Amino acid sequence: MPYFPDIDRVRYEGPASDSPLAFRHYDADKIILGKPMREHLRMAACYWHTFVWPGSDVFGAGTFKRPWQHSGDPLEVAIGKAEAAFEFFTKLGIDYYCFHDTDVAPEGSSLKEYRNNFAQMVDHLERHQQQSGVKLLWGTANCFSNPRFAAGAASNPDPEIFACAAAQVFSAMNATQRLGGANYVLWGGREGYETLLNTDLKREREQLGRFMRMVVEHKHKINFKGDLLIEPKPQEPTKHQYDYDSATVFGFLQQFGLENEIKVNIEANHATLAGHSFHHEIATAASLGIFGSIDANRGDPQNGWDTDQFPNSVEEMTLATYEILKAGGFKNGGFNFDSKVRRQSLDEIDLFHGHVGAMDVLALSLERAAAMLQNDRLQQLKDQRYAGWQQPLGQRVLAGEFTLQSLAEHAFTQELNPQAVSGRQELLENVVNQFIYR
Amino acid sequence: MPYFPDIDRVRYEGPASDSPLAFRHYDADKIILGKPMREHLRMAACYWHTFVWPGSDVFGAGTFKRPWQHSGDPLEVAIGKAEAAFEFFTKLGIDYYCFHDTDVAPEGSSLKEYRNNFAQMVDHLERHQQQSGVKLLWGTANCFSNPRFAAGAASNPDPEIFACAAAQVFSAMNATQRLGGANYVLWGGREGYETLLNTDLKREREQLGRFMRMVVEHKHKINFKGDLLIEPKPQEPTKHQYDYDSATVFGFLQQFGLENEIKVNIEANHATLAGHSFHHEIATAASLGIFGSIDANRGDPQNGWDTDQFPNSVEEMTLATYEILKAGGFKNGGFNFDSKVRRQSLDEIDLFHGHVGAMDVLALSLERAAAMLQNDRLQQLKDQRYAGWQQPLGQRVLAGEFTLQSLAEHAFTQELNPQAVSGRQELLENVVNQFIYR
Amino acid sequence: MPYFPDIDRVRYEGPASDSPLAFRHYDADKIILGKPMREHLRMAACYWHTFVWPGSDVFGAGTFKRPWQHSGDPLEVAIGKAEAAFEFFTKLGIDYYCFHDTDVAPEGSSLKEYRNNFAQMVDHLERHQQQSGVKLLWGTANCFSNPRFAAGAASNPDPEIFACAAAQVFSAMNATQRLGGANYVLWGGREGYETLLNTDLKREREQLGRFMRMVVEHKHKINFKGDLLIEPKPQEPTKHQYDYDSATVFGFLQQFGLENEIKVNIEANHATLAGHSFHHEIATAASLGIFGSIDANRGDPQNGWDTDQFPNSVEEMTLATYEILKAGGFKNGGFNFDSKVRRQSLDEIDLFHGHVGAMDVLALSLERAAAMLQNDRLQQLKDQRYAGWQQPLGQRVLAGEFTLQSLAEHAFTQELNPQAVSGRQELLENVVNQFIYR
Amino acid sequence: MPYFPDIDRVRYEGPASDSPLAFRHYDADKIILGKPMREHLRMAACYWHTFVWPGSDVFGAGTFKRPWQHSGDPLEVAIGKAEAAFEFFTKLGIDYYCFHDTDVAPEGSSLKEYRNNFAQMVDHLERHQQQSGVKLLWGTANCFSNPRFAAGAASNPDPEIFACAAAQVFSAMNATQRLGGANYVLWGGREGYETLLNTDLKREREQLGRFMRMVVEHKHKINFKGDLLIEPKPQEPTKHQYDYDSATVFGFLQQFGLENEIKVNIEANHATLAGHSFHHEIATAASLGIFGSIDANRGDPQNGWDTDQFPNSVEEMTLATYEILKAGGFKNGGFNFDSKVRRQSLDEIDLFHGHVGAMDVLALSLERAAAMLQNDRLQQLKDQRYAGWQQPLGQRVLAGEFTLQSLAEHAFTQELNPQAVSGRQELLENVVNQFIYR
Repeated sequence: MPYFPDIDRVRYEGPASDSPLAFRHYDADKIILGKPMREHLRMAACYWHTFVWPGSDVFGAGTFKRPWQHSGDPLEVAIGKAEAAFEFFTKLGIDYYCFHDTDVAPEGSSLKEYRNNFAQMVDHLERHQQQSGVKLLWGTANCFSNPRFAAGAASNPDPEIFACAAAQVFSAMNATQRLGGANYVLWGGREGYETLLNTDLKREREQLGRFMRMVVEHKHKINFKGDLLIEPKPQEPTKHQYDYDSATVFGFLQQFGLENEIKVNIEANHATLAGHSFHHEIATAASLGIFGSIDANRGDPQNGWDTDQFPNSVEEMTLATYEILKAGGFKNGGFNFDSKVRRQSLDEIDLFHGHVGAMDVLALSLERAAAMLQNDRLQQLKDQRYAGWQQPLGQRVLAGEFTLQSLAEHAFTQELNPQAVSGRQELLENVVNQFIYR
Repeated sequence: MPYFPDIDRVRYEGPASDSPLAFRHYDADKIILGKPMREHLRMAACYWHTFVWPGSDVFGAGTFKRPWQHSGDPLEVAIGKAEAAFEFFTKLGIDYYCFHDTDVAPEGSSLKEYRNNFAQMVDHLERHQQQSGVKLLWGTANCFSNPRFAAGAASNPDPEIFACAAAQVFSAMNATQRLGGANYVLWGGREGYETLLNTDLKREREQLGRFMRMVVEHKHKINFKGDLLIEPKPQEPTKHQYDYDSATVFGFLQQFGLENEIKVNIEANHATLAGHSFHHEIATAASLGIFGSIDANRGDPQNGWDTDQFPNSVEEMTLATYEILKAGGFKNGGFNFDSKVRRQSLDEIDLFHGHVGAMDVLALSLERAAAMLQNDRLQQLKDQRYAGWQQPLGQRVLAGEFTLQSLAEHAFTQELNPQAVSGRQELLENVVNQFIYR
Repeated sequence: MPYFPDIDRVRYEGPASDSPLAFRHYDADKIILGKPMREHLRMAACYWHTFVWPGSDVFGAGTFKRPWQHSGDPLEVAIGKAEAAFEFFTKLGIDYYCFHDTDVAPEGSSLKEYRNNFAQMVDHLERHQQQSGVKLLWGTANCFSNPRFAAGAASNPDPEIFACAAAQVFSAMNATQRLGGANYVLWGGREGYETLLNTDLKREREQLGRFMRMVVEHKHKINFKGDLLIEPKPQEPTKHQYDYDSATVFGFLQQFGLENEIKVNIEANHATLAGHSFHHEIATAASLGIFGSIDANRGDPQNGWDTDQFPNSVEEMTLATYEILKAGGFKNGGFNFDSKVRRQSLDEIDLFHGHVGAMDVLALSLERAAAMLQNDRLQQLKDQRYAGWQQPLGQRVLAGEFTLQSLAEHAFTQELNPQAVSGRQELLENVVNQFIYR
Repeated sequence: MPYFPDIDRVRYEGPASDSPLAFRHYDADKIILGKPMREHLRMAACYWHTFVWPGSDVFGAGTFKRPWQHSGDPLEVAIGKAEAAFEFFTKLGIDYYCFHDTDVAPEGSSLKEYRNNFAQMVDHLERHQQQSGVKLLWGTANCFSNPRFAAGAASNPDPEIFACAAAQVFSAMNATQRLGGANYVLWGGREGYETLLNTDLKREREQLGRFMRMVVEHKHKINFKGDLLIEPKPQEPTKHQYDYDSATVFGFLQQFGLENEIKVNIEANHATLAGHSFHHEIATAASLGIFGSIDANRGDPQNGWDTDQFPNSVEEMTLATYEILKAGGFKNGGFNFDSKVRRQSLDEIDLFHGHVGAMDVLALSLERAAAMLQNDRLQQLKDQRYAGWQQPLGQRVLAGEFTLQSLAEHAFTQELNPQAVSGRQELLENVVNQFIYR
């Protein structure tokens, strides 16, 4: 008995198609820069927004009446939800999915129930993966919804709560390993503070450092080959989160000697909430060597909370994809749609519209970015801009051959009087548009 | 011939005074927690906003007609400006001042003129300091106003511009050393980018790292005993600045092994532009061991640029001062008023109003913060909140005695079920108000 | 069987009190400017945040376990909740309360059940009011939580949903009238849009105009003597709300000829979400003649959603109260605490801390504002600033005696060359602090 | 002696062109929806950013060395600048331009000099217009840069300053009339406040109302056939501007009975500074009947000041253009590029890059929007969404046939239980992308 009886598998029909349930750009096996689109993009649907969220918000009750969201024995409901999810993944033709432990299994009323429920559901997921061929991009543990995590998980003032978080992360890492997950993600949704008046920043940072160290050691112990990823976010639900942005995470990782062990999972909406462009966060992480994976969505530029809308800007995504391609493309990471339909989009078909449109946006962005890369005028103009640093003065400075004094003396004695040159921003922006709207 | 002929030295008259030109709270030698107010606060007036800025903004010409801002031989004008400044410092009764190289000396049309002019003006400043007793809190170099720095100083694509910046910083560090400055500040006003399309983040970061390393080595070479301070700011005039906030600077310093060599100079308005409270930036820097000094001002919570208004909130400054006292107070740092009167405040007397009000705000905040500290209910409540970490489980976790697995097993076998407890935020906020409005 | 067995009635103990459950400033019957504090402030507690909200947020389940929030017959639960509420109001010593229809009565599964439940609960509320002396500041209808209102109430694309909203507002207005409410409030939490792509702004505006006209006519028909109030808010949960701010509401009211019939209920946190200071919204509404009442709370200056924290800034509230006193004080309005304790403040006592602290802040602000008013240097300086408009040229301009041409000719022929004068902002800010920290 | 000797007239070369100085999309005479592109778009270059601004910002001196920006007799310089401007307009192939009085003529040191200089320059402009065929989209007066306007022009506390503003607006309106300008714009850059402490909102609003009334009367007196336009902006340089956004201007216009006399000139960057999307401001103005013209530019979503960058998003501009076409297209208005090259874009050729790219963006957006309109699925889906209001209940409600009571009774007796339906946001967004990336 299918959950989406009226929907066939979404297929590529090309740009001229008028069908709202066809891909116009995502042609999974089309070769771009020597690799199929699907391998470049490694797209994933997420369990939480699409299968768990009931359409509620802070001002109102759920509007959805998903057939898999009903009362009944929690484990039975979870099994049905998994069936719905894999039917959806398959009909959508998406290669990966992502989940939190408590998305897929009922939390129960004790850690014991949690462990049992989760173990059973992992069996179901494994079977579904085998039958469908859908793979796990990453798993994670929800250490923020249970009331016990109100004051944080690893940064909680109560070490028993730290231990409960350890129990969940241990379970979720093992499940991810067993399900062949390509990465394991840590999102510290409550690792932050509501008020500095009751918060010891240094102490909580130490707790977080300890926790991450344990996670890293466990990864090696179980021989997990994927990447560990921290997901930066500046705030919400807390006033402030410790993993504010990529640069902040980099500082944290260095402090605890983890900068070669953990990378970042960058979310577009979290980037903009932190006051950065999505492009900035990707470029920054890449330049620091900690780029891992992407939570693909978009925020609302006029709203100050996480709206998690589906990405729909080819203009924005082309720049993001160009940056990722320049950094060598995804290794283990991919584009996970941490995106939800609007509360008013209450039909099942809206879930398809959201994903189909977003997958097309990524596919088109990949094509545009690949074209930009093949005839890389942007890089040429950039190289030309920094050409001076290839000359003797620049090389000697970088090689440490000058002290501040000797360089100052050089400037004074040579009577240096260098002039600013044009940065050509408008030209570069035009070049980008030329590739997007060719 | 005085520049402020109608103004006498500002004196402490106590809270009941109605005089707009008297201190109602700043009683310089009053002992607070065993030390005179002045030594706690180490307040400084700044040269740029008060003596250099003509009252212009992006939409209009200068409104001020300061007697020391007139046409004429640039060096003569600079000499007059220094006289005005020290007359102001003295009449205000402020102990310190701060300057950029090009605030005090005409830049001239070549590095040679720059060096000569600056050297002469340092003589004048030294004489004024001796005569007045006013001291230098910090010096700095303006590597952002000259058109050559449009694309940055140390992060410029042209190494000759890097060299010019080195010439200025070398000169300004030496001047600061000679004038007995307590710190040397680096503000990278153009160290950032306008567009990622023409920017190589990794390369520019390396350039900055090299520059900072040269600055640190020069400090040691000349045996400068003060602190080196980077001033974080997230943006403006650039789209993005590399020294976004304290956490970002911490990551940068660690990358280049400089975290024990350079601290931060935190500006209130820069904190809020970065999406943080001022309180947050101080607490964060203190927790990371890089707290140095303060640029005291305030932004406008509804405006998205640097308004640099005088601090006028005792509520905000009490929390800031409490945090500083908890961190041991200033070592070399102090409160520099990086604050400017409004463009419409075009009379000289407005400069006094701005500083007198702000100095009173800091003095009152110090008193309130000291009272909070003496009967430290905030700390007691905080200690109580984290008490669990003093117990065996917490101590063993922090000591590294658990792996993720053994801690998870502990949670499972002990059937842990810890409950959230109240964070008492409202009570704590009431306690703060009780101290402020006692 | 009391709901707050360990808490006595909160009493005024004066500034020196250390008790967390005493008023240090709110002395209800103290005469300020000829009137008791309580009559100036007309403070109200709200039903929704304090008695209905379970401590949930978008990322987590409720943390509270209020004794009146339990499973059982909904009407019985509602009766118990009302008992808890009035015990709280009485022990707190607050004079007013506010509610939505569905806060006090179970919504049921049909309009019929809604009407019956609400009617019964109004009887209970009436009895509680009589027994306790607590009065109703205002009532309102919740036309935003039920899924049917996902696309708005009066602005909904479905006229039947408009009719359902009419049924609720009709019921809530009548209940408010019967309970002696001093005002009736309209908050259009879903009157806005999620995307312009599916929205007809003009049509929805007409619908809203029609609805408001019906509400005004009903007010007159039932001879309700209180004020009708629209509560501006710019966004959240919708992307954009039609009642963005006071100036926007003023334009709407004029368009439908309602500017003398409806006023505004200004919320501090909504003001700041709209990019305005709270002070601005009050001053604007007063200058437009539509100032009605206040939702007293505060937002977080660094967070972009409605945090609804308790007001705790005397500095901010003194300016607000000064503005209200200048406008003649409240007529029917008052200060309603549309404020909630933090999700971590999960004990009942935290509800008291939140309200006691906030009531003290308002009491102190009233005292400070009254002092500012008695010796009104601010007004004197303001009058002096505009004195030119009392002179002939200004008077003639305002009287319409000049055309653009004749005034231009006046300027040219008189060779006018007026100069800017100081706006004295820093002095004025110091004056305010002088009154607050006297 | 040309100012742009190396640049030929920019021509349309089609999408395949690689030339940075050719149009790839703007084909001026191409017919779209029955009208040439140029008549749809009515594009204008502005005088101030392109010919007056020296490349300065608040932290640094001008970086440009435009050949027409040099010292010398101000009137001679102005004459040269006009030559440069018209050479630029002509080579760019843009049909319109816009100016402030003091952009084109030296302000001089008295109103008399101002009048004389301006009169002479109008002669020059008239001649240039005739020779080139370039037309004036709108003129305006700069009543914000001169220090006398620090506290506003019409809202100034000094009526003589009001009179000076009248002199300028009178002169600029007459000049606009003589030069055949299609509109006259009023931007109140200083009509706002820095602090409410020295501001009488009601009084200043009355002054503004009086001024606007005089302007309207003058328009009729001189029989100016174009539109009068107020340009909304929320802030900067002031803390708050009175013309915050379109809805606020609408309320102001109604208060003074001017809603049929004055429309709005909407700037993209001002919209986003006000917390709105550009799309919102256009749709709002259109729905209120006050849509006039556009200042085409873009802000930086992460920066909180007016960056005035060239528009470069076809995605954004297609929605804007679609909305304009739906509203009937421009009458007198057009797209004025109130855009400036970046401070680092210091070559003359950068001015061409900025405009060429932006003109192409608008041309492409027009094509996409026209396609959306021709097969208007968006409108069909919208009509369908509101279809219920065409039914008897909806029609009767709008016709005023129900009171609140009778409609409530209808809902109760009919036991209405309407359900939410999907708003189809994701589908609609996909439809838009389908047209943009067809």
